[in-house]
Amino acid sequence: MIPYKIYLSEDEMPKQWYNVRADMKNKPAPLLNPATKEPLTLEELSVIFCEELAKQELDDTDAFIDIPQEIQNFYKMYRPSSLVRAYCLEKKLNTPAKIYYKFEGNNTSGSHKLNSAIAQAYYAKTQGLKGVTTETGAGQWGTALSMACAYLDLDCLVFMVKCSYEQKPFRREVMRTYGAKVTPSPSMNTVIGRKILEKHPNTSGSLGCAISEAVEVATTTPGYRYVLGSVLNQVLLHQSIIGLETKIAMDKYNIEPDVIIGCAGGGSNLGGLIGPFMREKLLGKKDYHFIAVEPASCPTLTRGKYVYDFCDTGMVTPLAKMYTLGNGFIPSAIHAGGLRYHGMSSTLSQLYADGYIDACAVKQTEIFEAAELFARAEGILPAPESAHAIKVAIDEALKCKETGESKTILFGLTGTGYFDMYAYEKFHDHQM
Amino acid sequence: MIPYKIYLSEDEMPKQWYNVRADMKNKPAPLLNPATKEPLTLEELSVIFCEELAKQELDDTDAFIDIPQEIQNFYKMYRPSSLVRAYCLEKKLNTPAKIYYKFEGNNTSGSHKLNSAIAQAYYAKTQGLKGVTTETGAGQWGTALSMACAYLDLDCLVFMVKCSYEQKPFRREVMRTYGAKVTPSPSMNTVIGRKILEKHPNTSGSLGCAISEAVEVATTTPGYRYVLGSVLNQVLLHQSIIGLETKIAMDKYNIEPDVIIGCAGGGSNLGGLIGPFMREKLLGKKDYHFIAVEPASCPTLTRGKYVYDFCDTGMVTPLAKMYTLGNGFIPSAIHAGGLRYHGMSSTLSQLYADGYIDACAVKQTEIFEAAELFARAEGILPAPESAHAIKVAIDEALKCKETGESKTILFGLTGTGYFDMYAYEKFHDHQM
Repeated sequence: MIPYKIYLSEDEMPKQWYNVRADMKNKPAPLLNPATKEPLTLEELSVIFCEELAKQELDDTDAFIDIPQEIQNFYKMYRPSSLVRAYCLEKKLNTPAKIYYKFEGNNTSGSHKLNSAIAQAYYAKTQGLKGVTTETGAGQWGTALSMACAYLDLDCLVFMVKCSYEQKPFRREVMRTYGAKVTPSPSMNTVIGRKILEKHPNTSGSLGCAISEAVEVATTTPGYRYVLGSVLNQVLLHQSIIGLETKIAMDKYNIEPDVIIGCAGGGSNLGGLIGPFMREKLLGKKDYHFIAVEPASCPTLTRGKYVYDFCDTGMVTPLAKMYTLGNGFIPSAIHAGGLRYHGMSSTLSQLYADGYIDACAVKQTEIFEAAELFARAEGILPAPESAHAIKVAIDEALKCKETGESKTILFGLTGTGYFDMYAYEKFHDHQM
Repeated sequence: MIPYKIYLSEDEMPKQWYNVRADMKNKPAPLLNPATKEPLTLEELSVIFCEELAKQELDDTDAFIDIPQEIQNFYKMYRPSSLVRAYCLEKKLNTPAKIYYKFEGNNTSGSHKLNSAIAQAYYAKTQGLKGVTTETGAGQWGTALSMACAYLDLDCLVFMVKCSYEQKPFRREVMRTYGAKVTPSPSMNTVIGRKILEKHPNTSGSLGCAISEAVEVATTTPGYRYVLGSVLNQVLLHQSIIGLETKIAMDKYNIEPDVIIGCAGGGSNLGGLIGPFMREKLLGKKDYHFIAVEPASCPTLTRGKYVYDFCDTGMVTPLAKMYTLGNGFIPSAIHAGGLRYHGMSSTLSQLYADGYIDACAVKQTEIFEAAELFARAEGILPAPESAHAIKVAIDEALKCKETGESKTILFGLTGTGYFDMYAYEKFHDHQM
């Protein structure tokens, strides 16, 4: 019998990340300098990012890249994450389907974000930098980065969207516990922040503005660089640890998934989870049905256009070719903050354009219904983002119940919802 | 090399709980009926508790008791918990000591409470009951119980101290997510609640009052019984799973702890962690140095008296012989809500009286300093309760640094602090 939870031993853990771009015939389109419309060079990228990360961003030929020993050690503190057989959910649904999920929420940041945060912090440290800057909306990425920086004794400057800073004081306190300096954005600390505050003194901020402030500080302060928690190629590379561990665990027990499901905001989790499975599909060895799940109110893949666009609303970043709803797109208020992004990873965008991935959009009330059903069956209280994948996994399992098929379904459970109880409250009170 | 985390495989997991009373020469004193001052009979206990639990409460002869298969299955959803070698903390302290902790926070209730919640809910279910009632202060026990009841499809009525209900809406929402009915106490639903509200219409409630309401509903509603998360013998029995797993993991790697440390409120965690180690000490096979850590503001063992006292402030419960500060004792406001209890488990009290356990009391600011140091080194953000054990473990490790000894230190990390960020905020702002 397959155990409830499969944990790899330390010596079974991956020692290399997987770079899916190396196996893609159609490579993702390069980032462009918005001024010249020319592909960004290593030199240009290194002004914003650490050198090694800039290299990783551009590398579309090396399939496997060594994970430095210090990062491997950090991974051992909270990884391997468990691959869980959802016996209780299967029973509750009375489905012949076999459901598995890879659970990335068992660390204090509460999500998979830590996998890339430690990598980015590590390369900053080895480059001899003093610190890193970033922005955070919901707060998961900021928390992950502050944990990584505390471990490496690196400065961590987080610009937190002002309304989140005020409405989510607890996330802010977690970051402070890890020694991060958290500034509500817009702030008086930057040229762009002062400019915005002059025009809109009562603004509650936006992710676009916070990105602009973080980039400004990183590029004008000696010894600092900017880091980002999703969308980038380097982030998908680091997040491949999710899929690699999953693949090793599944191979060990001869489990072959038919359907692989992940929620998709900027693509960090989905890209990480599907990586090594996508490799087999790209190389023509095996077929899998990949499903990207996005919110109906921010349907980047299902309703966006595949064009060059800015990565931020402030239009200060490079241009990326991606499925996008337009950098000015403002999704209606939904509680899955991590999925409220107008664009999608260039790599995933290319794979989607080439027909390797399917996508679907789901409604908010449905995802909270799925979240609650899941919590009661499996114990884990999921983040609203993760609940998007749960919803579609349950739908697939119910289809099997109708057809009698016993498909093997794998989905990514990216994180826990402990800091999202306000959203659950709205759901319970039928105010959603 | 010892791995960072030791996980048992499913077939290595304990199939029996350990009942330390069976090996004690001086048995813990029995519960007394406050009216007659006679030991409570099984019949009397069964009015309040499920029959099987009442039996367990009285059983001081069977050393090992089978864990029913359904409880074993539930345990597999979130157990085994990891036994962690605190390599990063050791490095940060630069100590020759070897530090291990058993981490019980990796489940949605955020603590070890789930170990007994599922057992108590299971016996209620098999007795054919409709539901259970309980009280909750900080909310961990209520959350654990609602998870267990959701799994078994059992009604769960939680009386939550009114000030917590209002100040901790997120804990309340977690319970609601698992289908529990959460009532702020005092309420108009009970005779005693109405009486209290008549006298004190603006009261913010107390644990004593919430216990009284929960007991009233359990004893006056057909098909309901009352359950409790700490102090009782049955709870220590169920919590022995913590120590049993720890012992198996340590034996597997030939690790022998010299010092074993746990925080102590009602004693559920400490009693569970030390169980199988205490057995060896009681049987004269091995010696261990056990340390119970309590808050300086609620120093039950270090400053209390070993006498018969009520378990609640409302004086409606049976009398227990225990170290107590008096049932009217009100500790000054501290943030480790789980340790604000005037008494201590009868079993631990007897072991302490007989010299098998040491105890010490630590101050609030110190424990938050220890918590932050630990979080930055080991990643996990601890609950304030757990930080009491961390503080003393660090002290012991620093002693080793002075003496050059490389003792092996084991402590219980009972849970996470995600719902305690208000307390961390006060600490960061020097308002503690």
